[in-house]
Amino acid sequence: MTITTQTHELKTKGQDDCFDVTEVVRHDVARAKIRDGLATVFVTGSTAAVTTIEHEPGLVRDLKDALRRLFPETLRYAHHETGGDDNGFAHLRASFIGPSLSVPIADGTLQLGTWQQIVLVDFDVRPRTRAFVVQLLGE
Amino acid sequence: MTITTQTHELKTKGQDDCFDVTEVVRHDVARAKIRDGLATVFVTGSTAAVTTIEHEPGLVRDLKDALRRLFPETLRYAHHETGGDDNGFAHLRASFIGPSLSVPIADGTLQLGTWQQIVLVDFDVRPRTRAFVVQLLGE
Amino acid sequence: MTITTQTHELKTKGQDDCFDVTEVVRHDVARAKIRDGLATVFVTGSTAAVTTIEHEPGLVRDLKDALRRLFPETLRYAHHETGGDDNGFAHLRASFIGPSLSVPIADGTLQLGTWQQIVLVDFDVRPRTRAFVVQLLGE
Repeated sequence: MTITTQTHELKTKGQDDCFDVTEVVRHDVARAKIRDGLATVFVTGSTAAVTTIEHEPGLVRDLKDALRRLFPETLRYAHHETGGDDNGFAHLRASFIGPSLSVPIADGTLQLGTWQQIVLVDFDVRPRTRAFVVQLLGE
Repeated sequence: MTITTQTHELKTKGQDDCFDVTEVVRHDVARAKIRDGLATVFVTGSTAAVTTIEHEPGLVRDLKDALRRLFPETLRYAHHETGGDDNGFAHLRASFIGPSLSVPIADGTLQLGTWQQIVLVDFDVRPRTRAFVVQLLGE
Repeated sequence: MTITTQTHELKTKGQDDCFDVTEVVRHDVARAKIRDGLATVFVTGSTAAVTTIEHEPGLVRDLKDALRRLFPETLRYAHHETGGDDNGFAHLRASFIGPSLSVPIADGTLQLGTWQQIVLVDFDVRPRTRAFVVQLLGE
């Protein structure tokens, strides 16, 4: 059984910036020579999330629109008073979509669909350097 | 340590078709003789998701209603222009709920509640054959 | 490879009661002496969920507000007719946020951000004793 844990960094613009990190995960799988096992992708921080999407510009636009419709920036957020911060909606978007994703690996291949990419979405209001972890368990 | 990765297929009608796959996962756990470990259920594709629900007809109806309320089919989606497709809302539903679920196994038993079933929901607009992966890590 | 599966209990008030369980998970990691591996937190039951959030009173308030805005208690739910129950919105909140969370462990430390706590949220309408499982795989 092999366990590898790799931390990667990404410079984002915030504002629901949506990054395809599939190749980063694939590269880690190849380097660790995992044939069968589990890949976990986890974003460190409470204003970003990890999920899958068909990563094409139209859908990325639609995702941003849905996030703003469901968690509007114009509502009053108690976090802005208690936290001295202005990103309450970013926290909620992150908690709903969630920080972790689990993808099985079989025959050395992530079991993703052809149009299913692993994405990190940064909901925060300002540019950030984001850390995310790729952990592989397998053999 | 045992790792098994099994791909299953399911014929769906799309349109938020919601399938209870708990028995499929249970059967894989029994066949692999896993006593303690982790079950990962992952749906291949970007217009379906995996979660848990009390799988009874009323709630399945409520789930569809909520999906349509939060991600209406009648909005304009940029994906329909860039992707030449008409299922933008299906992609968004999938990205929000997510493609993977992790369930601990103890004493050979999935640690689900009595009214907590593992479901695959297909949001696409047309009938499809769906593949999903059940991966077990344990001993 | 070590696998430990620990069930914990929590007395909640329901009504979107939001508990920080990070220290419970940290304690399990320390006791199992896992240096590198995966922590899975899973809530048993179909009206509660697990995610991460900055656990401060303002955001907890904002989370409740968002849940009530997106899944209002005042809508008609088919579950209330078929299930003889009055918590349809609680089930939907649970299915959307999801019952499981995966967090990598490296150097004996959960790879969480400073303001990123693991929370269990109970959406049910009445006080409950909630069971949740912390499973650790690693070495």
